[in-house]
Amino acid sequence: MRVEAETPDVAWERRTEIPLFYLSLVFLGGYAVHVLAHAHTLWRDIATIVVGLTWLCFVVDYVVRLVLSRQRPLRFVRRHWLDTVIVILPTLRALRMVKVHDAVMAKRRDRPHRSLYPRVITYAGLTSLLLGFSGSLGLFDAERRDPQSPIQSFGDSLWCVIQTLTTVGYGDVAPVTVPGRLVATALMMFGLGLLGTVTGSFSSWLIQIFRQDDEEGPPEDGSSFGGPSVA
Amino acid sequence: MRVEAETPDVAWERRTEIPLFYLSLVFLGGYAVHVLAHAHTLWRDIATIVVGLTWLCFVVDYVVRLVLSRQRPLRFVRRHWLDTVIVILPTLRALRMVKVHDAVMAKRRDRPHRSLYPRVITYAGLTSLLLGFSGSLGLFDAERRDPQSPIQSFGDSLWCVIQTLTTVGYGDVAPVTVPGRLVATALMMFGLGLLGTVTGSFSSWLIQIFRQDDEEGPPEDGSSFGGPSVA
Amino acid sequence: MRVEAETPDVAWERRTEIPLFYLSLVFLGGYAVHVLAHAHTLWRDIATIVVGLTWLCFVVDYVVRLVLSRQRPLRFVRRHWLDTVIVILPTLRALRMVKVHDAVMAKRRDRPHRSLYPRVITYAGLTSLLLGFSGSLGLFDAERRDPQSPIQSFGDSLWCVIQTLTTVGYGDVAPVTVPGRLVATALMMFGLGLLGTVTGSFSSWLIQIFRQDDEEGPPEDGSSFGGPSVA
Amino acid sequence: MRVEAETPDVAWERRTEIPLFYLSLVFLGGYAVHVLAHAHTLWRDIATIVVGLTWLCFVVDYVVRLVLSRQRPLRFVRRHWLDTVIVILPTLRALRMVKVHDAVMAKRRDRPHRSLYPRVITYAGLTSLLLGFSGSLGLFDAERRDPQSPIQSFGDSLWCVIQTLTTVGYGDVAPVTVPGRLVATALMMFGLGLLGTVTGSFSSWLIQIFRQDDEEGPPEDGSSFGGPSVA
Repeated sequence: MRVEAETPDVAWERRTEIPLFYLSLVFLGGYAVHVLAHAHTLWRDIATIVVGLTWLCFVVDYVVRLVLSRQRPLRFVRRHWLDTVIVILPTLRALRMVKVHDAVMAKRRDRPHRSLYPRVITYAGLTSLLLGFSGSLGLFDAERRDPQSPIQSFGDSLWCVIQTLTTVGYGDVAPVTVPGRLVATALMMFGLGLLGTVTGSFSSWLIQIFRQDDEEGPPEDGSSFGGPSVA
Repeated sequence: MRVEAETPDVAWERRTEIPLFYLSLVFLGGYAVHVLAHAHTLWRDIATIVVGLTWLCFVVDYVVRLVLSRQRPLRFVRRHWLDTVIVILPTLRALRMVKVHDAVMAKRRDRPHRSLYPRVITYAGLTSLLLGFSGSLGLFDAERRDPQSPIQSFGDSLWCVIQTLTTVGYGDVAPVTVPGRLVATALMMFGLGLLGTVTGSFSSWLIQIFRQDDEEGPPEDGSSFGGPSVA
Repeated sequence: MRVEAETPDVAWERRTEIPLFYLSLVFLGGYAVHVLAHAHTLWRDIATIVVGLTWLCFVVDYVVRLVLSRQRPLRFVRRHWLDTVIVILPTLRALRMVKVHDAVMAKRRDRPHRSLYPRVITYAGLTSLLLGFSGSLGLFDAERRDPQSPIQSFGDSLWCVIQTLTTVGYGDVAPVTVPGRLVATALMMFGLGLLGTVTGSFSSWLIQIFRQDDEEGPPEDGSSFGGPSVA
Repeated sequence: MRVEAETPDVAWERRTEIPLFYLSLVFLGGYAVHVLAHAHTLWRDIATIVVGLTWLCFVVDYVVRLVLSRQRPLRFVRRHWLDTVIVILPTLRALRMVKVHDAVMAKRRDRPHRSLYPRVITYAGLTSLLLGFSGSLGLFDAERRDPQSPIQSFGDSLWCVIQTLTTVGYGDVAPVTVPGRLVATALMMFGLGLLGTVTGSFSSWLIQIFRQDDEEGPPEDGSSFGGPSVA
């Protein structure tokens, strides 16, 4: 994990890190405008071009890294499968910043990482939010073309995605088109694991706090719910 | 965690602990009257004033503690984020009593804490109950104004909240207004973690009991389900 | 946990163990006849009397044990809270046999207990089954009196209970009466923990099998899925 | 677990391993044709015969192994209960290949197994997929005969199975016939444990990655999300 004599692919990744992060925000913004400003032809066309161009950048970055790595393509794809997912779903790229930010913070303040579980909760929670927002856009895009669909506004789509990711599934708004159901299925596949991580980490964290109280005695400094003791 | 020379903020918290606990019960009661006695104008107005006054007390307490802590506001908010949540949702304040009660009990009887998992289950279960009751009030308050909403009584609202917190989600009663859906979303966010904790702790506890039986041999004193052996 | 000089309450429990087990089966059978043979007045009346008499036996047993234990009532109730639940819901009594059977088996064959997780799965799974069957009877009993309820047969009630315990909750059949919703809520409260235990133990068991394979090398004796290696 | 002097039953299993794997694919394909080409009488009849013949092969294999093992039938069934399940649901047989493939890969490349959690996720995920596909076929087969059923195409059936396995349960398409509800119940029983395993392993894996980062310092080689470090 140490950086010794920097190889070309490592140098490339270090330099493209920040630009690609901003590009992923541009991508998500462009897609949001493309979907939500559907009625306004000019805006929609501009947004479509922006989305296309940024996507192209991610594909170029992926190909450059594939070439620089000097690995066989299949091996590269298998070892970097999460990067491959990012090429297909570039909004996830924005999440890399969580880790980078975390590392920068740790260095600057010269103090150890925050406790494990809050970091996992933050990370998985933010990914869920990004996934949910992107999924709502995709679901709305797919469903509004069908006049029989109960999803006729972005709010309905968001409400459906929240129901899906939490597995509550009231069913008052559920996708009826094939692309809409594919988006919902993808959300279940990716989202359930992430949300399970949030729930499980929260549970482990609470049990950890209770266990620490057993060893240290009950808190008497008014730090309700053990808040500061895990900060 | 020891109290040495008591600083002003610690002294403040120790003294306000009990009054603020009773105040949080007054707040919840006032809000319940405000929502459930909606038709009776006099009671509703009294309840609205009570809710407003108690909320003010919590805000004052928060500001006093912020000043006494001599920390920068942002840092204080981040280190005491659970206290910040309590200011926004004061009914959660009542839960601090669970821990205080627990500690008092442990001291008085001069015996160790109860087993870890039953305590976590009690704590998370009680929080879920309080959250569910407050959420039902809020949901009913938001939904009854819409004549198309299937939630037209407090019973319906309670039934919807139970479905939501357990993720069963039949969907026979589901919120249709934007504020109602926001309340339901908040319940999912906060409630799923808490209920996951209850379920996970129950599971861990049962496995622990079975493991203890393996080591000690099967119980022969009629303590069905290993009940007393974990008390 | 050793039986030394047998105290009266231990002797009582040892002697009532087997009769009370059969009595709990009689109770469940009587309740099932009471609910399912509702149209046939004679059978229903006989079943009602059987249920009442067996319930009385459980109450007598509880009182006798309370007296024999020479503990204060409140302390007895708290230390034997699962027995208290059994008095209210006597069908759960049948579950004690799982442990007794397990212990008998272990002694007879002079071999150690079965692996931890399969036993937990068996135990929690059987409890879920009993709980689900009793709950279906109670739900059917509550809902059929309302002509607007979608639950008009025992099959519908069973289908609703299965949906509830697994948290799938399609909502095609959902309780509409207050007693029916109370039964469903009780099923969620008790059932989710039990089913979470089954799911969690299955998960832990599978991971344990994979971990054992890592240490021992892949199985070459055709024991598919590591079945026998955990027996 | 070592193969010393190969007993007849071990030799039988080693030789039938590969043919039975292909036979299980034939079985699944035959059943799919039987269900999906329902309107085409010739294809359906051919498929029915193929399904019957392959099933017969699995029954013969099971009986031969029972005889060769020289165990009492009841003991054999209990020790090989997963094989018994496979005889009833032969498509699960295909899953044995995951382990065999895994072992072959480990030997060929002369390197240790892949990390525990990704393997568990792959294994449980593939089983879920197979189970879901088989279940969709069975559900479609059961429901299409009822004109009142909302499941009138294989796509509807697949959508219903996805909702069921993830416990989302919108309820827009839910089985109404008794055989369809039995298939859905079986999917819940078998599927929830498997999917819980996928979710739980993903969660444990993510926490493991974060913990490793704590020990090794933040990654600086651009391996986003710690992907390669767990490969």
